[in-house]
Amino acid sequence: MPQKIIFEPIGTIHSPYKDIEGMPIQPTGAKGVKGTLEIDHKYVSGLKDLDGFSHMIILYHFHLSEGYSLEVEPFLDKKKRGLFSTRAPKRPNPIGLSIVKLLNIHDNIVEIEDVDIVDGTPLLDIKPYVPDFDHRDVKSIGWLSSNSNKVSEKRSDERFK
Amino acid sequence: MPQKIIFEPIGTIHSPYKDIEGMPIQPTGAKGVKGTLEIDHKYVSGLKDLDGFSHMIILYHFHLSEGYSLEVEPFLDKKKRGLFSTRAPKRPNPIGLSIVKLLNIHDNIVEIEDVDIVDGTPLLDIKPYVPDFDHRDVKSIGWLSSNSNKVSEKRSDERFK
Repeated sequence: MPQKIIFEPIGTIHSPYKDIEGMPIQPTGAKGVKGTLEIDHKYVSGLKDLDGFSHMIILYHFHLSEGYSLEVEPFLDKKKRGLFSTRAPKRPNPIGLSIVKLLNIHDNIVEIEDVDIVDGTPLLDIKPYVPDFDHRDVKSIGWLSSNSNKVSEKRSDERFK
Repeated sequence: MPQKIIFEPIGTIHSPYKDIEGMPIQPTGAKGVKGTLEIDHKYVSGLKDLDGFSHMIILYHFHLSEGYSLEVEPFLDKKKRGLFSTRAPKRPNPIGLSIVKLLNIHDNIVEIEDVDIVDGTPLLDIKPYVPDFDHRDVKSIGWLSSNSNKVSEKRSDERFK
């Protein structure tokens, strides 16, 4: 199955993080941090009705990640874990996913909050966040069960560049 | 920003839905529906530790969608809505996102439940679903507020092919 899928950014994500090092590793560790989505003008009419939602899912390209390893030592653990059991950015298809707060929309600029993304990141998609679709009653969170409470303090370093 | 981003599937999603028509429109409308992820053998070691999680996020290519419109009439409404305020599959970058239940993993086959995806869909990524990262207290869900309760009955039709 070596077919290629080609995407083009719909815009650029702006944030206070100019470098990966020191960044929060999830939006829950980036409470109150503001940023913007600068949407390519040709897509602006697709933003209609989005301002009714308090949160959205954004998908983006981890453009600073080079290559990947199938086993990684995550920020939240000291043991190597299978890549797909982690949210590490170095992946075969380096697609990032964050759930952010929507503050407001002016023309092609979407103001957002709880941003854990490096400045200049190419934006791929925006979807409305809907609890009926996106909340699940979860029974287990694997190796994260003893570690996920650390997420709000933990900061990124150079390992996933 | 016309840079191109090239992805390759990491596997294929199998489900009972051989065609778009009649499919559930979200995993919440596909309760109990089983499917599998057939992962390319070269990525199998990345699945380690994933079986500790009860749910995962899968990202995939809406490979049957051709083109896009920036305003669409969603399955759940009769008014045209801005594309990025909907989960419609015809998007500038047609990336699908579903949260599914993980049943078990044998070698390169991941058995999943609550599948709202058409058979043969190219898989792009798997991420563990973690309430600490993925649950948000939502204040508003825009135009969906009067419609999201219909999601479990509503079925897809040909409009997004």
